Amino acid sequence: MFGCLVAGRLVQTAAQQVAEDKFVFDLPDYESINHVVVFMLGTIPFPEGMGGSVYFSYPDSNGMPVWQLLGFVTNGKPSAIFKISGLKSGEGSQHPFGAMNIVRTPSVAQIGISVELLDSLAQQTPVGSAAVSSVDSFTQAQMTPSPSEMFIASKCVVAWYENFQRRLAQNPLFWKT
Amino acid sequence: MFGCLVAGRLVQTAAQQVAEDKFVFDLPDYESINHVVVFMLGTIPFPEGMGGSVYFSYPDSNGMPVWQLLGFVTNGKPSAIFKISGLKSGEGSQHPFGAMNIVRTPSVAQIGISVELLDSLAQQTPVGSAAVSSVDSFTQAQMTPSPSEMFIASKCVVAWYENFQRRLAQNPLFWKT
Repeated sequence: MFGCLVAGRLVQTAAQQVAEDKFVFDLPDYESINHVVVFMLGTIPFPEGMGGSVYFSYPDSNGMPVWQLLGFVTNGKPSAIFKISGLKSGEGSQHPFGAMNIVRTPSVAQIGISVELLDSLAQQTPVGSAAVSSVDSFTQAQMTPSPSEMFIASKCVVAWYENFQRRLAQNPLFWKT
Repeated sequence: MFGCLVAGRLVQTAAQQVAEDKFVFDLPDYESINHVVVFMLGTIPFPEGMGGSVYFSYPDSNGMPVWQLLGFVTNGKPSAIFKISGLKSGEGSQHPFGAMNIVRTPSVAQIGISVELLDSLAQQTPVGSAAVSSVDSFTQAQMTPSPSEMFIASKCVVAWYENFQRRLAQNPLFWKT
């Protein structure tokens, strides 16, 4: 029903079904993974009114899985690209994989897909930094992506400017010293 | 042999084979596409010493295809994510699809995969802005991606700073006027 693709690697289409409505893909060597694509194979749609919440889990320092909600796939949006490179130190969130006895290997991360009611999905909030499209539409709108250039957060410039302005008001020649 | 996935849509696995070593996927409604994933299905590897160059083409104002090299897939790197949202107004480059009589519909873009010698691929330069991983590793290294914040190109800050410094040197009180 689902496919999972780590950018640069071979596609996986054989999910481990850990419950009637839960599917898991192993992601070996997860430290080197930047992007994961999760998609429906197109063979079996979700039942009417259902969709899938997509979770990423990585082992914490004790080897315990930390689950984070990446986003969703539905019949209307049957694929999504997620950026997980920034998530390997984040905190876990509520997830439906707690009670499962999932076979896991140390240093292997996992993608979990939980089939749920669309109404239930609508109440879940994915971790902000995982959505590739929103990050990208931002960088497009706000700056021209250019790997050879450095960018600075505008709030740093504003903070520096306000500080500079304050010192200049106190002593117009402070910058000469 | 290949799969193609537009982020948010159903996966495509039935490429149109337009020559022995050339494969094409149609991308309808291409104006709304941000990311495309191109991957090997894992059924048939490239012949020894061969790989695939991946091109994107969109129709220019006259309906003529403009081809741009996105990057490569190989047996060692059998999948790649490309960002095409910034490419729909760029210039075309050298490409191997010129002589083909490819059936195309207006307002449909295409992904073309050309199977070539790895030595030949090594001499081709993809358009810079298509590589998702290089852009992302940059944004990660240089700034924390954060959709709620604005970012400024550092060269703009430097230019403003140099100008400010010059005016301040000419007249230490110019900023008061």
